Amino acid sequence: MSNPSLLILPGDGIGPEVMAEVRKIIDWFGANRGLQFDVSEDLVGGAAYDVHGVPLSDETMAKAQEVDAVLLGAVGGPKYDNLDFSVKPERGLLRLRKEMDLFSNLRPAQCFDALADFSSLKKDVVAGLDIMIVRELTSGVYFGEPRGIFEEGNERVGINTQRYTESEIERVARSAFELAMRRNKKLCSMEKANVMESGILWREVVTRVGQEYPEVELSHMYADAGAMQLTRWPKQFDVIVTDNLFGDLLSDLAAMLTGSLGMLPSASLGAPMANGRPKALYEPVHGSAPDIAGQGKANPIACILSFAMALRYSFDQGAEADRLEAAVEKVLADGVRTADLLGEEGVSPVSTSQMGDAILAAL
Amino acid sequence: MSNPSLLILPGDGIGPEVMAEVRKIIDWFGANRGLQFDVSEDLVGGAAYDVHGVPLSDETMAKAQEVDAVLLGAVGGPKYDNLDFSVKPERGLLRLRKEMDLFSNLRPAQCFDALADFSSLKKDVVAGLDIMIVRELTSGVYFGEPRGIFEEGNERVGINTQRYTESEIERVARSAFELAMRRNKKLCSMEKANVMESGILWREVVTRVGQEYPEVELSHMYADAGAMQLTRWPKQFDVIVTDNLFGDLLSDLAAMLTGSLGMLPSASLGAPMANGRPKALYEPVHGSAPDIAGQGKANPIACILSFAMALRYSFDQGAEADRLEAAVEKVLADGVRTADLLGEEGVSPVSTSQMGDAILAAL
Ligand SMILES: CC(C)[C@H](C(=O)O)[C@@H](O)C(=O)O
Ligand SMILES: CC(C)[C@H](C(=O)O)[C@@H](O)C(=O)O
Repeated sequence: MSNPSLLILPGDGIGPEVMAEVRKIIDWFGANRGLQFDVSEDLVGGAAYDVHGVPLSDETMAKAQEVDAVLLGAVGGPKYDNLDFSVKPERGLLRLRKEMDLFSNLRPAQCFDALADFSSLKKDVVAGLDIMIVRELTSGVYFGEPRGIFEEGNERVGINTQRYTESEIERVARSAFELAMRRNKKLCSMEKANVMESGILWREVVTRVGQEYPEVELSHMYADAGAMQLTRWPKQFDVIVTDNLFGDLLSDLAAMLTGSLGMLPSASLGAPMANGRPKALYEPVHGSAPDIAGQGKANPIACILSFAMALRYSFDQGAEADRLEAAVEKVLADGVRTADLLGEEGVSPVSTSQMGDAILAAL
Repeated sequence: MSNPSLLILPGDGIGPEVMAEVRKIIDWFGANRGLQFDVSEDLVGGAAYDVHGVPLSDETMAKAQEVDAVLLGAVGGPKYDNLDFSVKPERGLLRLRKEMDLFSNLRPAQCFDALADFSSLKKDVVAGLDIMIVRELTSGVYFGEPRGIFEEGNERVGINTQRYTESEIERVARSAFELAMRRNKKLCSMEKANVMESGILWREVVTRVGQEYPEVELSHMYADAGAMQLTRWPKQFDVIVTDNLFGDLLSDLAAMLTGSLGMLPSASLGAPMANGRPKALYEPVHGSAPDIAGQGKANPIACILSFAMALRYSFDQGAEADRLEAAVEKVLADGVRTADLLGEEGVSPVSTSQMGDAILAAL
């Protein structure tokens, strides 16, 4: 049997430097745990635009469709701010999500014990926090037509379309219920059914899918109330399911509760391929952080934990994922900190590669 | 000259009981400060539905158009959850906003010194917080067409339309810049220009209006990053301007930072009327809280401070508004607390009307 394949797309800003640490980790699992991967690397975002004039070439897109999993760093940067909308770095990422049909985006918001003091929230509000946001990722206002800037009378109008079919809602709801079954059997669905018809349909379909999961306690919340409740007492939640745009804001909010954006991974999953593995892309929640790029200051943990998610969700290696996550926790408990995690007195920061090495040593 | 006119719409849930306290305050200003108002009262939301079969009758709508300012309590409740979308309590409120063309919704998020401990955020993150969110209120996905649930093939699809014209963006941007000029001359505009064309137009128009206000330091942020930054370090902001849907989430998030939703008022302003006063509706940020309605537990301060905003923005009585706000701060500093503000040891809560009386006494 051939090795499972990984396509690595480091992207822009701090993407390449955090991904270099992930490659060390991948090599370690090959050398020590018998988990060999066929790894290839390619361009996405501004890096792809610089070479190909587009933020994702058709060749790279085709490769992404063939591999067992894609690992992505980050896209974007001020250098590309004035590019036309159609070739902005983000379009490369959005094309991957859409063409791979990665409808279920898992965003854990987990507070690491060693970092609980680091949050802007009170310690008792966030210590031990462990919630999972399931964000729909291939539809909604991100992709709905019509869209664009049009002339109307003597002025212009900007239009985007929020659009969800029953089957789009159904499949992401199902993936959220499945996840809830493996966790604490509590699911909260968020929309604005009080003002949006698409939210009414969302609530109706989620409720219907819920009948297949009688063990899961399902609740519904308006997204604005959701933003409040996440801020007030996030531990009331276990799994949250919501649409693409609400998920964008709410998952970033949830991430920030933990105080350490540089820690948070994500998985974007689609339908099973012929080999039974889901189409999958893994990426850190943080962005490309152009202000610190190339300085060895970036925290590689979010990207490393994204690889742990790949072990768990693509390669059925839950025990190896646990091993990697435990190594990260140990390093944090030992007080190893990149610059973004400082705040305690008397600790001086390690570099990106020193953090990678510390995790290797802990493995 | 005739007295200025006020239309009071208590609405549902705790609306009537908090509004009763506002009426005491209004009477006090009439008796003691020579500010007499012609006050009338009418129905909105579920209360209107129960009588008229619609959440806002045409007669009430016509009255709202004629008065100098509308004060609204809250709408909605579980009793009305299964009503058809078109007659849900919220539609009454949305009709008022739309037909009065109240495009500029001012939502202060202010942390009262006496309540800083009450936030889920660390005290140094929120103490002294004083930001103002300007939310566009009459357009965007709340009102865009097409909208609805449609048959498509053999399934249904839920559709809403995000839609902004240049002039809609321009007028709310201008109101935000004007406000910034009267505050700290710092304005941050939030959208998702990286994924939505309506966000690109938003950013472009806000930037153009900004050229008329060279003294105001203008910045732009993606709304997801905005949610994060509000959570991480809200004091970096002074005035924020954003669209209807982002404003819904972000202003609720900002409100929750202060830890005391029962404290926060809002003003929704439109174009000047013939008498020079803007069309205006004032309402607390909190909802109808059906779980505690009718028990005398509700905190009337948000609604009372909404009347203070009316004094300031509709009646040019800034000094009287300051007087009322100072009375509220005094009462809080004295340790008077409704049930929602408890948490400190050894304090027992006062009722809704006791809180109103305490504020009267402080006046
Ligand atoms: C980079 C951007 C297009 C993206 C999004 O809006 O989805 C990002 O914010 C995210 O959440 O992954
Ligand atoms: C009640 C509801 C329609 C309303 C909104 O979504 O605008 C509320 O959440 C608000 O923010 O005023």
